[in-house]
Amino acid sequence: MSSPKPKQEVTDTREKEVMEEGKSEQKKKVMVAIDESDCSRYALIWALENLHETIAVSELILFTVQPIVDLSYAMVSTLGSAPPDLITSIQENQKKIALTLLEKAKDICAKHGVVAKTVTEVGDPKNTIYEAVEKLNIQLLVLGSHGRGALQRVFLGSVSNYCVQYVKCPVLVVRKTV
Amino acid sequence: MSSPKPKQEVTDTREKEVMEEGKSEQKKKVMVAIDESDCSRYALIWALENLHETIAVSELILFTVQPIVDLSYAMVSTLGSAPPDLITSIQENQKKIALTLLEKAKDICAKHGVVAKTVTEVGDPKNTIYEAVEKLNIQLLVLGSHGRGALQRVFLGSVSNYCVQYVKCPVLVVRKTV
Repeated sequence: MSSPKPKQEVTDTREKEVMEEGKSEQKKKVMVAIDESDCSRYALIWALENLHETIAVSELILFTVQPIVDLSYAMVSTLGSAPPDLITSIQENQKKIALTLLEKAKDICAKHGVVAKTVTEVGDPKNTIYEAVEKLNIQLLVLGSHGRGALQRVFLGSVSNYCVQYVKCPVLVVRKTV
Repeated sequence: MSSPKPKQEVTDTREKEVMEEGKSEQKKKVMVAIDESDCSRYALIWALENLHETIAVSELILFTVQPIVDLSYAMVSTLGSAPPDLITSIQENQKKIALTLLEKAKDICAKHGVVAKTVTEVGDPKNTIYEAVEKLNIQLLVLGSHGRGALQRVFLGSVSNYCVQYVKCPVLVVRKTV
């Protein structure tokens, strides 16, 4: 069975409010890609603290990826067809996790006096980040770097490496130093 | 014969002036590593235009590397000993090139209303950038990305890849899109 089609959802559109301020067209767009890791939380806080002047005059978008549902185990247990209810349930659960993560990140922004928009997509992290940068016309992408060890670098750091190589806007990689 | 020992030189110290403003200790330090490429010129201009608010409240350092003098051809032609005059001449010439590059970059900064310090070192680009970030206590490193093609990515992009992986401060990689 094929994976659910990636779907972009703007979960908190303050587009109208921003438009009313009359500065939307001039504003730069900064996107911070987050996940549940300490590294990405650190990257967000670093950006808010160290690029505050730049972020304050920009539109800040918090972005997270909902992983594609892996139904292989369900298909085996049900002889090849995963129950539709199960698929829906897993997807809904992942969406809730993503929204909770984004809300927490938005709270961090609010504590720094920044109102952020939130966006979530279903898909592979590399592709969805790449596509979101294109689609949302992002001028600066901020990412955490999972640089704690060689193994983590190989598995988790690959997203930041991919983005530095291929994403078309400038990419800021924030490493959490121990 | 061993290569000349890398030597750091602060070619334009406005430390005193900055100190007199009484803000030196609070100021963040942003370093832009430049070379003679369009990519690094673009990265500098991008940072000045897009992070202007952040750079305006920071100390901006322009950094360039003087390559280690390759004396192998001179040693062959002189049966194993390179003439000291030649070594000095090549080193002086490379220093002049580096200083000219830094002056041009400083002019670009001045046009954006930013007074920059300039620093140059002799050595391998990766190592000297890594060490300068440590030594100067840099909070943000800005680099150009040579992302025009696969071959260029392999040879020239390696500096930005290395920095993203190993430099201890956040790294902003600015790609020049065609």
